[in-house]
Amino acid sequence: MDDIQNEIHEECGVFGVFSQENRNVAQTVYYGLFALQHRGQESAGIAVAFADKMTYYKGMGLAADVFAHGAFDALPEGDVAIGHVRYSTTGASQLLNAQPVVFTGKCGKMAVAHNGNLINTKRLRDEMIAQNAVFQTTIDSEVIAIMINSLSDGDIVQGIKRACAKIKGSYALVIMTCDKLIAVRDPYGIRPLCLGTTDSDVVVASETCALDAVSANFLRDVKPGEIVIVDDSGMRSEFMDNIPGQSRMCIFEYVYFARHDSVLEGYSVYEARKEAGKLLAKYYPVEADLVSGVPDSANVAARGYAEESGIPFVEALAKNRYVGRTFIQPDQRQRENSLNVKMNALRANIRDKRVIIIDDSIVRGTTMRRIIKMLRNAGAREVHIRICSPIIKHPCHLGIDIQTYSQLIGAYKNEEQICESLGADSVRYLSVDQLVSTCKGANTGFCLGCFNGEYPYPPEDYETDKLKLE
Amino acid sequence: MDDIQNEIHEECGVFGVFSQENRNVAQTVYYGLFALQHRGQESAGIAVAFADKMTYYKGMGLAADVFAHGAFDALPEGDVAIGHVRYSTTGASQLLNAQPVVFTGKCGKMAVAHNGNLINTKRLRDEMIAQNAVFQTTIDSEVIAIMINSLSDGDIVQGIKRACAKIKGSYALVIMTCDKLIAVRDPYGIRPLCLGTTDSDVVVASETCALDAVSANFLRDVKPGEIVIVDDSGMRSEFMDNIPGQSRMCIFEYVYFARHDSVLEGYSVYEARKEAGKLLAKYYPVEADLVSGVPDSANVAARGYAEESGIPFVEALAKNRYVGRTFIQPDQRQRENSLNVKMNALRANIRDKRVIIIDDSIVRGTTMRRIIKMLRNAGAREVHIRICSPIIKHPCHLGIDIQTYSQLIGAYKNEEQICESLGADSVRYLSVDQLVSTCKGANTGFCLGCFNGEYPYPPEDYETDKLKLE
Amino acid sequence: MDDIQNEIHEECGVFGVFSQENRNVAQTVYYGLFALQHRGQESAGIAVAFADKMTYYKGMGLAADVFAHGAFDALPEGDVAIGHVRYSTTGASQLLNAQPVVFTGKCGKMAVAHNGNLINTKRLRDEMIAQNAVFQTTIDSEVIAIMINSLSDGDIVQGIKRACAKIKGSYALVIMTCDKLIAVRDPYGIRPLCLGTTDSDVVVASETCALDAVSANFLRDVKPGEIVIVDDSGMRSEFMDNIPGQSRMCIFEYVYFARHDSVLEGYSVYEARKEAGKLLAKYYPVEADLVSGVPDSANVAARGYAEESGIPFVEALAKNRYVGRTFIQPDQRQRENSLNVKMNALRANIRDKRVIIIDDSIVRGTTMRRIIKMLRNAGAREVHIRICSPIIKHPCHLGIDIQTYSQLIGAYKNEEQICESLGADSVRYLSVDQLVSTCKGANTGFCLGCFNGEYPYPPEDYETDKLKLE
Amino acid sequence: MDDIQNEIHEECGVFGVFSQENRNVAQTVYYGLFALQHRGQESAGIAVAFADKMTYYKGMGLAADVFAHGAFDALPEGDVAIGHVRYSTTGASQLLNAQPVVFTGKCGKMAVAHNGNLINTKRLRDEMIAQNAVFQTTIDSEVIAIMINSLSDGDIVQGIKRACAKIKGSYALVIMTCDKLIAVRDPYGIRPLCLGTTDSDVVVASETCALDAVSANFLRDVKPGEIVIVDDSGMRSEFMDNIPGQSRMCIFEYVYFARHDSVLEGYSVYEARKEAGKLLAKYYPVEADLVSGVPDSANVAARGYAEESGIPFVEALAKNRYVGRTFIQPDQRQRENSLNVKMNALRANIRDKRVIIIDDSIVRGTTMRRIIKMLRNAGAREVHIRICSPIIKHPCHLGIDIQTYSQLIGAYKNEEQICESLGADSVRYLSVDQLVSTCKGANTGFCLGCFNGEYPYPPEDYETDKLKLE
Repeated sequence: MDDIQNEIHEECGVFGVFSQENRNVAQTVYYGLFALQHRGQESAGIAVAFADKMTYYKGMGLAADVFAHGAFDALPEGDVAIGHVRYSTTGASQLLNAQPVVFTGKCGKMAVAHNGNLINTKRLRDEMIAQNAVFQTTIDSEVIAIMINSLSDGDIVQGIKRACAKIKGSYALVIMTCDKLIAVRDPYGIRPLCLGTTDSDVVVASETCALDAVSANFLRDVKPGEIVIVDDSGMRSEFMDNIPGQSRMCIFEYVYFARHDSVLEGYSVYEARKEAGKLLAKYYPVEADLVSGVPDSANVAARGYAEESGIPFVEALAKNRYVGRTFIQPDQRQRENSLNVKMNALRANIRDKRVIIIDDSIVRGTTMRRIIKMLRNAGAREVHIRICSPIIKHPCHLGIDIQTYSQLIGAYKNEEQICESLGADSVRYLSVDQLVSTCKGANTGFCLGCFNGEYPYPPEDYETDKLKLE
Repeated sequence: MDDIQNEIHEECGVFGVFSQENRNVAQTVYYGLFALQHRGQESAGIAVAFADKMTYYKGMGLAADVFAHGAFDALPEGDVAIGHVRYSTTGASQLLNAQPVVFTGKCGKMAVAHNGNLINTKRLRDEMIAQNAVFQTTIDSEVIAIMINSLSDGDIVQGIKRACAKIKGSYALVIMTCDKLIAVRDPYGIRPLCLGTTDSDVVVASETCALDAVSANFLRDVKPGEIVIVDDSGMRSEFMDNIPGQSRMCIFEYVYFARHDSVLEGYSVYEARKEAGKLLAKYYPVEADLVSGVPDSANVAARGYAEESGIPFVEALAKNRYVGRTFIQPDQRQRENSLNVKMNALRANIRDKRVIIIDDSIVRGTTMRRIIKMLRNAGAREVHIRICSPIIKHPCHLGIDIQTYSQLIGAYKNEEQICESLGADSVRYLSVDQLVSTCKGANTGFCLGCFNGEYPYPPEDYETDKLKLE
Repeated sequence: MDDIQNEIHEECGVFGVFSQENRNVAQTVYYGLFALQHRGQESAGIAVAFADKMTYYKGMGLAADVFAHGAFDALPEGDVAIGHVRYSTTGASQLLNAQPVVFTGKCGKMAVAHNGNLINTKRLRDEMIAQNAVFQTTIDSEVIAIMINSLSDGDIVQGIKRACAKIKGSYALVIMTCDKLIAVRDPYGIRPLCLGTTDSDVVVASETCALDAVSANFLRDVKPGEIVIVDDSGMRSEFMDNIPGQSRMCIFEYVYFARHDSVLEGYSVYEARKEAGKLLAKYYPVEADLVSGVPDSANVAARGYAEESGIPFVEALAKNRYVGRTFIQPDQRQRENSLNVKMNALRANIRDKRVIIIDDSIVRGTTMRRIIKMLRNAGAREVHIRICSPIIKHPCHLGIDIQTYSQLIGAYKNEEQICESLGADSVRYLSVDQLVSTCKGANTGFCLGCFNGEYPYPPEDYETDKLKLE
Repeated sequence: MDDIQNEIHEECGVFGVFSQENRNVAQTVYYGLFALQHRGQESAGIAVAFADKMTYYKGMGLAADVFAHGAFDALPEGDVAIGHVRYSTTGASQLLNAQPVVFTGKCGKMAVAHNGNLINTKRLRDEMIAQNAVFQTTIDSEVIAIMINSLSDGDIVQGIKRACAKIKGSYALVIMTCDKLIAVRDPYGIRPLCLGTTDSDVVVASETCALDAVSANFLRDVKPGEIVIVDDSGMRSEFMDNIPGQSRMCIFEYVYFARHDSVLEGYSVYEARKEAGKLLAKYYPVEADLVSGVPDSANVAARGYAEESGIPFVEALAKNRYVGRTFIQPDQRQRENSLNVKMNALRANIRDKRVIIIDDSIVRGTTMRRIIKMLRNAGAREVHIRICSPIIKHPCHLGIDIQTYSQLIGAYKNEEQICESLGADSVRYLSVDQLVSTCKGANTGFCLGCFNGEYPYPPEDYETDKLKLE
């Protein structure tokens, strides 16, 4: 899947640091957010605690842009800091929705960064409003934060345990008070969260690539239902009540979201993707002259396919790495042309060739349809599509931005119909079992809801209408 | 008093509109804020309600700058809108403190704009925190807003009445829900607030000059302790309980804050200033060749002095009207020079002349000291200072940014000592009675606390340490 | 005349400094430009020479904005520096037309800042192009600069003398090489230019207010046709050949352009304006209750009128001093309203009064028409207009932005017709002789072309079509 | 070689379009520049000719950023347009050096965009200055442009031919007058330039990937010494006098500069890179567990190595694709850490492995040294470096930003010493002959000056001191 104007969005990346010595905690978070930038490009924020004070800066755009021009320098030194990157919706006025959420309440000053999505937000929000709470943003993360405060009786860990007993959905939280860093992962472990250490610091991050970025050593993943508290007396854990036995991490983390140099639940994302390519070759072979991936995310899988099949890996598509947010498409009429600008067929490599294209997933199918057309225009004789995951048939309310059935090419179409709709010579997906088997090295079970409709939470837990606050 | 890098700051200006027909309520507020810009240049914000939605935009700087570059165009049409301009402290990160405060709570969506200053903020805030409230900003206006919500039981007017029974200090409030515009003035009427109408709209504003700016007709001032509610069924009033008989408007509104084309409590600001000049001439005459005002704010008074004394009004000082916020003083060493850049002596007018300089007030004395030096350098033979108000001897906690005795040249010095400190030939102030007599046309009593230490609220109401949240 | 979105534009302000000791020459120029800001708000630029290098920074907008955000700090220390402010036309792309013009040529590095307007630009430009010159901008100042280089044979003073023999029009030039500061004024002295000194520096500026701003002492005006050269060996003068005996400074400098604290040709601008008001009272009396000026520029004259007539000066109009370039008029329909935002009638002062309004000049009449309407709406019984200059009947090609007859309300109308068109009760202008007599203290003759059509240069010198390069 | 803060910089990319019908020429250029963005990220500019007018916009940064926020929309429709992207030096003030160079001269309005570097700039510039020319920038492209004008006698093609007879160095030029688009390539063809067509347009671009981006069909490369003129009467060619028989394209275009989906001189860049990897495997084999490339530029070569050697291609390094210009390194002390942020070792893939790393070239060696250290820290047992080009031993004055011997790790070290300096287990480079053989499909000879010191121009043509204008 093309990663710039892509079709699936992760909700967020979170990062936190508690330091015994190093005062440059804002800097550590900045580097960490940088490594997690792929998890959200809409906004970035860092909050720093120093003595009994807390300060923060949030802005729209990439972390590097938000903290350029002196914004970073305005952050103080401190003992604890957390940060957040958020994915893009629309509108500059959405700055109010950037995280961390920072406020003063019963536990003193407090900051919360959240990756995930609640499914009973409206119910909780109404309940809190009835108890005199007010909400200044439209994000469920504020609901979590205010609930924690409200239920805390001044003891934040108490507040977290009580709040977690009421909130349903996915949540990897990094929470900070003036003297504590706290990491929380929902009882199913739907979103990833891991711990690392340096000589002086404890670090928590959505993915291990962010530990590497700050030269921290990987310690372990936060467990489903675990609350890790770091303060001057060290690190300790508490657990939520009633943790379901079975963890259900979102398998899309392996398929697409996570950086391929991250290791989740003991298993390398790179390995999972390569294995997916191999399985595609094994179960859905096709005679062809070359195999290629949609850059950059499907390249590893494409090489797996090549290895397994013996068909040479040859790049069919070159991506313009400078296409970003400010790229304008001056003329509606030429919008067709825009894929040419973002991606280009390597004409010399594919002319008169039978081409296999690997992609991680298909949501709407719009981009894939254009890629196929571009390849044919460039002289490809056949174009066969192989997808490293099953058909997406259901919306997701736990963190992937797929909201309605109508957005999904796979909601009402089978492989053959999809193939016809895309204009490919063949289209094959991994089955659910096959996908799961690519992740067999992972120390977790999986949520496969978007493929098979089976979500961790029972249907009655979901609010009928997805909360639309804006 | 020089008005660019001046020594006293008003806290804010507020504006609101409820419209039966005209959908361009944001525009009306924009024009209104423009006319109130002199009351605050740090930040500006507008919130608009349309159907059951509410949206807003806030930014640092002048209203014209905040709403340039498409920000204004992003505001929707609506039925109700309020706006706010705030005075400048420091730091770009203070965007969080810009108003209106907007949130969702028991009364649905709600926005609050506040001019004034509470004196029991910390107490109230702690009380609210104990009841699970959280505070995302450091401004007392948020405390008021959250308190109103909390005490409302869903009926905002109820909430306002109950909150006003607890909060102490100065407050002119403009509040909006999705179907109501509400104007509130504290029981002493410390800050001004007035009502106006057009064919289709009801308008509320800090000063009448903002009514003029939107071509609204002046209706009346909001009364001390009054709560004016405007909705589809028209305009109605409620009153707080226990309103003290005697109103106590801040007399500095006449002296310096308000625009001289505004009419407060039935009395023209222009008239008050001119009268102050006349009284200075009557009671504190001095032989001189010319009289001049510190531009722009003291020009009217200077002309009053000239009229009364027969001494010709001749401009002694020219102000560079382009000195604004972005003006940098490149070199600390040349800071002395910066007054030359902001203000220049009209050499030809003052050489060998005995000069009377009128100013509205003196706070630190720094600017006046430099002006006197500049006039002498330009050849003035004598420099006599006449001030349109009494010596400021006490801090103010009700809306003027004078926080400590140490900032005040008049706290420990009498006229003679001030004269010596400034290097003038003579310095005379109006007495408190004289100042009050310049405002005798006004339909209100006055707070004179900064002159005589007598504040509307009894001493025990004031928090010992002025709340320092940041 | 209202000075923000005014109807007449000066072309530019120029400033230069040569320093023996003080290395902060850029800062001196920055302060100087600040004081000359009223002469041009479109763009600002500073060039600095240090050793054999030259660097510059130019930008769109006010000097304070252009040099904010680090741009000033990027300028090096140096020995010589010049600067320029330019009036506003349209479009961000006009940055290329900002001055100074800086280049490397026969005289080494060279920078030129120009106030004025040539009348034979096209002819000169074509001539230079035929000799292989190229022009990267569309301004006549580049033509002057390239011509000087071309005719210099490496001796810049030679180049200036030869170029001045060919160029016709108005020009006050400040020119810099790596070791010289040169001031040049056209043979008629149409634009002002003066010299000042500090202990270490020689300074040249369009007006004396800029000398004051940098604490320089006024030395003398540059003479018409004079070339003042300042370098390590001191200051010396050369003169152009064939200087006409009679100087012809633009009288609008006194009427409107210059700051009223400047002294031009030995005569105070303030004095000239006050005298204009007095003459209006003497020759064009009218019974009235009060006299007021259009702020800010006509206030001095209005006080002159009041003094002479005995009719009290009372402010009728208040100006919003925050209306600047970024002020947007959101809705075309409400454009009528925009004058209310910029200016407001002091209702209390004028109700049922017979009002005399003084203004410096009338160009199109649009603003004056609205002011009169606003005064009548505010209750004025009569509105009498008195103008401190004669009817503008002719375009100007020497520096004022009046290009065509059709822009001028006075081109085809007499006083009575103008009065009717504006909706005033009476309108009277000073005669040409009267205006001249207000400036009788000035050590110069005047160009009165826009009033009487008599320009310094004979008609055959003017290019038929005003050069339109863009 | 890491491509963000890389060690070698291409000078520029050029693009032009002449259209018979399509008026959106600015848009075509915008898309073209986008595809050429890898050739220069410092500044971007587009000039458009319409009727007898010409307008342009230039700015600092990526094309997408420069033309965002309305800048693109301000460009008019037209018949001809050219554009340019330039590589990064330092300083915002360098806007003056952005291209195209646009001016009015003997040939009317004219715009020039240049990719390459002259070696006799100073001589030519002095010669032109002696003939009264002035230079407003410090770029050699302005020298070319002014020379063309000067020698043209109004016939631009004449001017080009005469100028090309005098200028020495590398130059691919795209030139525009109001009715012509002209493409020029230096007699050695050192920089690439190619022609394409659509139904209505003729297009010229540095690389074919830009033709693809605007859906143009590749027509042919511009020939060394050729001047292609496109106007209403069609396309025609002229040739410079004395074209050396042997073309000498910069071989670094294949090694690193060009996008791997471009085809230069009939030969695919992708193919050349893959072949380089194969030759490295063939001639410099080493026992290892995996081979990987420094992303992104060396990945193709690494796959060639893998194919030839049978050693599996496994990614060892992951690149953070969000590291761009605004990325700040907050603390000098942590600069060591910055490579971690830009690049990360895939720990799981390389632990205890013998790793071969392929890179296109080594300049200073700084980045490679850090990569090797990072790989060892991540557990690599051996790290073998294979470079797709020979040791860079000499500076380049023809378009690569390698200015002095001291910058080059290979200037005074042989392979063994480089290996030791980098801390690798082995380092091997392709020989010059081997590199040339990877490009044997190309229809051109090569400049190999940076490898063997043999430049196209004889030593006496080079100016002793490389021109330093700034």
